[in-house]
Amino acid sequence: MARIEPTVESNCTFDGAFRLDAGGDLPSPEVRYAVYGELNQRRDNAILVCHALSGSARVADWWPELFPGVFDTSRYCVIGANLIGSCYGSTGPSSPNPVTGVTYGPDFPLVSIRDMVRAQARVLDQLGIERLHTVVGGSIGGMQALQWAIDFPQRVERAIAIGSAPLSAMGLALNHLQRLAIQLDPAFRDGRYAPGEGPEGGLALARGIAMLSYKSPELFSQRFARRPNRNGEDPYRSYADRFDVAGYLDHQGEKFIARFDANSYLVLSKAMDTFDLARGYDSERDALRRIRARVLLVGISSDWLFPPEDVRDLAQRIRAAGHACDYAELKSSHGHDGFLADMDQLAPFITAALWRPSRNPVPITRPQVVRTANL
Amino acid sequence: MARIEPTVESNCTFDGAFRLDAGGDLPSPEVRYAVYGELNQRRDNAILVCHALSGSARVADWWPELFPGVFDTSRYCVIGANLIGSCYGSTGPSSPNPVTGVTYGPDFPLVSIRDMVRAQARVLDQLGIERLHTVVGGSIGGMQALQWAIDFPQRVERAIAIGSAPLSAMGLALNHLQRLAIQLDPAFRDGRYAPGEGPEGGLALARGIAMLSYKSPELFSQRFARRPNRNGEDPYRSYADRFDVAGYLDHQGEKFIARFDANSYLVLSKAMDTFDLARGYDSERDALRRIRARVLLVGISSDWLFPPEDVRDLAQRIRAAGHACDYAELKSSHGHDGFLADMDQLAPFITAALWRPSRNPVPITRPQVVRTANL
Repeated sequence: MARIEPTVESNCTFDGAFRLDAGGDLPSPEVRYAVYGELNQRRDNAILVCHALSGSARVADWWPELFPGVFDTSRYCVIGANLIGSCYGSTGPSSPNPVTGVTYGPDFPLVSIRDMVRAQARVLDQLGIERLHTVVGGSIGGMQALQWAIDFPQRVERAIAIGSAPLSAMGLALNHLQRLAIQLDPAFRDGRYAPGEGPEGGLALARGIAMLSYKSPELFSQRFARRPNRNGEDPYRSYADRFDVAGYLDHQGEKFIARFDANSYLVLSKAMDTFDLARGYDSERDALRRIRARVLLVGISSDWLFPPEDVRDLAQRIRAAGHACDYAELKSSHGHDGFLADMDQLAPFITAALWRPSRNPVPITRPQVVRTANL
Repeated sequence: MARIEPTVESNCTFDGAFRLDAGGDLPSPEVRYAVYGELNQRRDNAILVCHALSGSARVADWWPELFPGVFDTSRYCVIGANLIGSCYGSTGPSSPNPVTGVTYGPDFPLVSIRDMVRAQARVLDQLGIERLHTVVGGSIGGMQALQWAIDFPQRVERAIAIGSAPLSAMGLALNHLQRLAIQLDPAFRDGRYAPGEGPEGGLALARGIAMLSYKSPELFSQRFARRPNRNGEDPYRSYADRFDVAGYLDHQGEKFIARFDANSYLVLSKAMDTFDLARGYDSERDALRRIRARVLLVGISSDWLFPPEDVRDLAQRIRAAGHACDYAELKSSHGHDGFLADMDQLAPFITAALWRPSRNPVPITRPQVVRTANL
């Protein structure tokens, strides 16, 4: 299948200081964004797709199965925006501070999911998009979709969050240990490593721990069982020889260090931790009462990072706050990664949600124009 | 409650080379053992209690709740033996090689559960115990109990294994990452660290990863939820500030590095990996067909390191090999640690198993004597 390229891929710069939730600010940050398809005349066909921890603005690179069947670019204008703090084109720890010219490194300020969403809103402002047809994402992407529905209720018609909820204590524990792994590597140098000289062993170990939580025990048993590593190692004979699942984790670590920055990992992992729906409001209930979008939450049956019970509970809390909320569940053995792996099941959920009437039907700024042909 | 002290605590030395499964050998290794209570005249009241990864021969230190109710030392002679490779008195990586005088460190040979059990059998030989009333253990201790029943069928009347089965792929993955954490620490120095200068950060991280697998998500949620660390840190404000569960894991790591050796951790973790019932036999079925003991397997409902399904499956495989096998399940939110935490439930299971008639009633060497008063 040919790789789908964005119609536009560019950077958006915000003038002045971008204030952050936790108190710091970023001078003139940039956000990389990618657009697939085109905005219609009514400007009401924009879908914002929020990426997960290691994703990018290039939605079709990491969710290719949704193009063109679900994200039909003759109908929708699909937008991805790289997270503030990431290493895929937006301002992050490996960027220079434009005021001092010095790379941020460990001095990059603490960024929240709310900050990330506010940055995305600024991108949409610059693109002239007042209102989203849909905001959708999995994992941290789903956190953003929920935060959009809360912080910008008038700008979101539909919100879809897959495998997302505030992290449980187990999730917080997993993230903490991943950050410890990075910090343990002597090459980390308190975050002041030179480009290309980062903490590879620590980042690979962090990725390994994360992979445990992205996959399910069931999937690991199916794929690897207790087989020795496929390259012929004999784990019964030497300490160095591995079982197959260990070889797999090491390989995943190797792949990851080639494409991700350790300081960015710390920033995004921390943002995931601090996602809490009550933030900025008097209570979670007050936050949830703001929602106007039609919300679909999707749980993944074998997800133990964001257990389906937690997602279902969140749907219940949204309902208890007086707002309808749809819930669907992927029956998947893939664990959390089901939102990337079980596309045959997920695609119809998303399609159906895109076609459902919005619960937020009254346009705030939408001009009263005649429907154009591409609707 | 007063600490219960062993009647005898001593070391047993084996003359000559102790051959190991994986091919190496240990010259004149020592095994630390502890005895609670006394052997009766018939020498048929001995219970061998096998410890888990970080335990010791001093059974009453880590399973105090079983004394004196379950392990009634006026009736039973309870014996603990520290594992070969451990750091609680038996020969391990921090011991000197008696031939060269040099500390083993990373040159300590690969030890299997079978080796550990064979060493225990040698200890019993020296104590004049031909036959065990019961062998019991949880986690790696349960692996040993099962291995006893297979390798020494005539010497075991009852075997009780709690939260034990061959490790699944997820378990192998968890152990692999723990070993990587130790090796990542620059203080590890390929295992050639000086006493007191070991890889503390790496060992603490390994313990943290292990703790995830010893506890259940449910328990973490109950105990810690998303609360900030109890010392007043604010995880929403700074990268260094932690949630409560992170503070807990760090504290567990601190406690652990004060009492455990990193090289021993690598040895025992690897032994856990290589536990495979088929080892030394043509098949697992052939191994299981050797069992003569009455076997009780106990699963722990919230255990995800040794899921109760895996324990139940193992019971089924023992039955399929033509031998009866009892199965019981702890209903516990503690996860794998249930075998140490939920003693109110576990104690009656063990008591009942100790009182059940053995399936191995014909003594091989037991003299035909009149029952003595203490039976």
